[in-house]
This record gives sequence, structure tokens and C-alpha cells, in this order.
Amino acid sequence: MHVLVDGLQGGQVDPLDRGLNYGDGLFETIAVLDGRPRFLDWHLERLAGGAGRLGFPALDAALLRREIAAITFGARCIVKLIVTRGSGPRGYRPPRPASTRRIVAAWDWPAPPASAAAGARVGWCRMRLGRNPALAGVKHLNRLEQVLARAEWDDGVMDEGLMCDEGGSVISATQANLFAKLAGRWVTPRLDQCGVAGVMRRAFCAWQAEQGSPVEERVLARADIESASALLLTNALAGAWPVRELEGRPVPVDGDCGEFSAWLARV
Amino acid sequence: MHVLVDGLQGGQVDPLDRGLNYGDGLFETIAVLDGRPRFLDWHLERLAGGAGRLGFPALDAALLRREIAAITFGARCIVKLIVTRGSGPRGYRPPRPASTRRIVAAWDWPAPPASAAAGARVGWCRMRLGRNPALAGVKHLNRLEQVLARAEWDDGVMDEGLMCDEGGSVISATQANLFAKLAGRWVTPRLDQCGVAGVMRRAFCAWQAEQGSPVEERVLARADIESASALLLTNALAGAWPVRELEGRPVPVDGDCGEFSAWLARV
Repeated sequence: MHVLVDGLQGGQVDPLDRGLNYGDGLFETIAVLDGRPRFLDWHLERLAGGAGRLGFPALDAALLRREIAAITFGARCIVKLIVTRGSGPRGYRPPRPASTRRIVAAWDWPAPPASAAAGARVGWCRMRLGRNPALAGVKHLNRLEQVLARAEWDDGVMDEGLMCDEGGSVISATQANLFAKLAGRWVTPRLDQCGVAGVMRRAFCAWQAEQGSPVEERVLARADIESASALLLTNALAGAWPVRELEGRPVPVDGDCGEFSAWLARV
Repeated sequence: MHVLVDGLQGGQVDPLDRGLNYGDGLFETIAVLDGRPRFLDWHLERLAGGAGRLGFPALDAALLRREIAAITFGARCIVKLIVTRGSGPRGYRPPRPASTRRIVAAWDWPAPPASAAAGARVGWCRMRLGRNPALAGVKHLNRLEQVLARAEWDDGVMDEGLMCDEGGSVISATQANLFAKLAGRWVTPRLDQCGVAGVMRRAFCAWQAEQGSPVEERVLARADIESASALLLTNALAGAWPVRELEGRPVPVDGDCGEFSAWLARV
């Protein structure tokens, strides 16, 4: 793992950093393929949107691009970018003006789980997602709900867990967005109450729109997911990952997964 | 400001720390008065409870006490203690076993806001608190809601902001618990959906129970707060802080504030 903290190789983080103290920050996980960060414009666009939502000063996208390029190694790696509101006096009140802090790290591309190539085996998490429209969609650093959801299984049998919000609507997996094929059309949960609006979710929606069948965003219940003819997970690393099993019940893998992956390889 | 990171004076924090990456940690803010951390047993008890809720390994309370003693300076200071799930591989999945990280910092006691001695002027925050029973009451590091609530005013007129949850129930102030006197009795919001169960809240409840009039925890609406005969904020630093104004309307200061402060000075 290589890391730049405010541009400094191998740097460490101030214990007063607001990202650490309050989760007052944002992050992006970016796939580098053939030496190129995939969908970098969209990652930076989402990050800028999150910065606006949290009231951060405008980010220096050119500097972030340079640091991402500097940290990238080999043809294939994972880059994680964290931007926090920096350090400041004690207390929740954000310093004005704030001076943001950048943490840019690169990891080896992980070996895919052996059984996962054929599709993901998923189940329902007990942990719910709290609703807060003010934070919905933003990839911020308050991720305890996902951490506790991911702690629910460690059995080598389940690959991902699906999460509902406090009202019982289905939102996503712990680290992926969710698509369901209902009546021959892909639908995905609305993310206006909670959840993270993933860059690969955007890519899948863009691809479907190109195909002339735009994805519908709507409120989805567990029963909708359980009755879907196919399910699909998306995230920046996996691209589209078909679900092959839901709570032990087989789910057919849809041909769109392969077609989207082929499209992804071209963009 | 003095700081110990895992016992190391002036230490910095690993960029992979899970507290920074996910808010995967807990904190305590402790008032040191006459060289003695006030309610330290209760702070450590709440911390241990939170560690249990998040699935941390058991904390070494004796070590934490030694580090708090080592960082304390002068007769009067503020100690902030952060415990995170430490560092680990990339991803939400908690490492097992986890090795927790300790950050213990001490600050000068802050000058009280000039106008605040006479009581707090409070208003309603627009920011809501998401509900999640799995995290309710725990003083964890996911505090973006409080940060954004605290960012709502900077006018020198409002001292604190009151927050409701997504369902409209009143929960607390941004950095204090709330008590309301209704029909001659103190009541305080239930914290089974969200909010932080403060140590000074516990102290105020203990004092009231000693007086033979236990505080009732219940669901409270804005109208309850607006019709209360007195309002009181509690936190570890301020003790009991009477509210003297709600949205510009004067609120009488109750004599119990002074009596509780006198009791506090004795314990």
C-alpha cells in the first residue's frame, strides 16, 4: 500500500483531523485498469457534489488528478481517495474557512473470491440504514452501518449482504448498488433517503439508457427483490456482478451482465 | 493541546485507521476539575458499553486511566479520548481480532461564551437525526449530522441548536442532552432510536432520583418542548446549562439548575 497525505509520501494524519473525529469527510474508491483510473471524471464529479453538500470549500480537481497519477502503480490497482474537512479547533462547528486534507492511497488489485466469478451469493442483513435525506447519496465517511452489516457474516458462504432502510425499503448491498430485473426491465432503489449513489451504478444506468431502456429508480420492497427475474450488484471494482443466489435460492444470471462488462471494457 | 496516540507523545494516526476511514470508533469528552477527571468511571463504563455494541475487543480500562492521568495538565482541562477499531485491510469487514487504537488528548479549559452564563439561547436545527436503534445512545464517531447541524448558525445570537429525528421527535441539542420541565416534572427524550446517552444526562437523572423525583424518559414532540416551563441542557463540560431563550422567546430559568450545580460540585 502506498499513500500520500496532503501530497507527502508515507504521511500520517493529524489526530485532530475532522475525518477521524467526526467522519467529516468523503471518499472515492477508484479502479485503475491498464494504468488508467476508470470513470475518474465521474468520481471527481461525485466528490465535488459531496463537498458541496457538506459545505467544504471547492476542491482542486487538478491537484487530485496529479496525486492519483502519482500514487498509481502497475497496470492494475485500486486507488482510494479521502478528503476531510482538515483539522480545526475542538467541537462540531466547522472551521471557516476550512482547509481540506487529502489522503490518496493505492493497493494491489485484490484476488477475486474463488467462488465469486460465477456470481454473488447474497442474503439479507439485519442491520438497517438510517434515513437522512441531507446525507443520502453522498459517499461520506460515516460508515458504521456498513461496517456492522459486514460484520454479520464470515462464513465463506455469503459474498454480499443486502440492506434495507429503517422503513424496510431495500437500498443496496454493503459495498455495492443493487439492480433488479422486474417485468423485463432493470430497476434500482431510489437513494433520496439513504445509500450511496455509486459511480458504477451511474455507468450501468448510462449503458441501459444507451440501449433505449432507461433504468427506473423507485422504492423497492424485499418482496420485489425476492420476485425479481435477475439481480445485479455494481461497484467501482467489480463492475457488474450478477447475483446467483439469494438466501440459498438460485437466481438466474442475466445476459445483460456480460454485455455490460463488454461495454465497460470499451469505455 | 497535548496528545498521546497509542501511548506515544505527539503521535500521529495511520491513514488506514478505521476511525478515519469509516468512523469506526468511539469517543468520550471528559471534564478535568481540580486535577480530577469528573465521572471517569461512568465515562469508561459508557465507552465499554459502546465497544460491546460495535463488537470491539474488551478495552484495557487501567491503561486508559493511566493515559488520561498522563495527559492531564493543570487543575482544569478537557480530555478527549478516542478509541478506534485500529487499522486493517481495505474494506468494511472488521478485522478479527481487531487491535484497537487509543488517542488521548488534553485541551485548555475553554473560556465560556460571554453571554452564556445567564443561560443558553437555543433554536431549532433544520438538520434531522437518522434513526438506527443499533447505534442509538452510543457515542460513536459518525457525527456528520451534528457537524451539519452546528454549521447552521454562526450569528453570535444562538448558543445551541435543538435537533429532531427523522420522525419529528425531539432528541437533543447538537452537543448536549435536553431536559424539559412538564407539569412540574423533568422529562428527557428517549434515546432508543438515535442520540447520545450523555454522562451528565446520567448524572442529572441520578440527582433527580436522589431527590425522589426520577426523570421520565419519553418520546417528546416540538410542542412539548415549546410548552415546557423550563429547559435544561447537559453535557460533560457545562454540567447543567439552563435555557433562557427558545427561538427568541424567553424561558424561565429553573432553580434546579443551581441546585444540581451545587450537587455536582460536591460529588
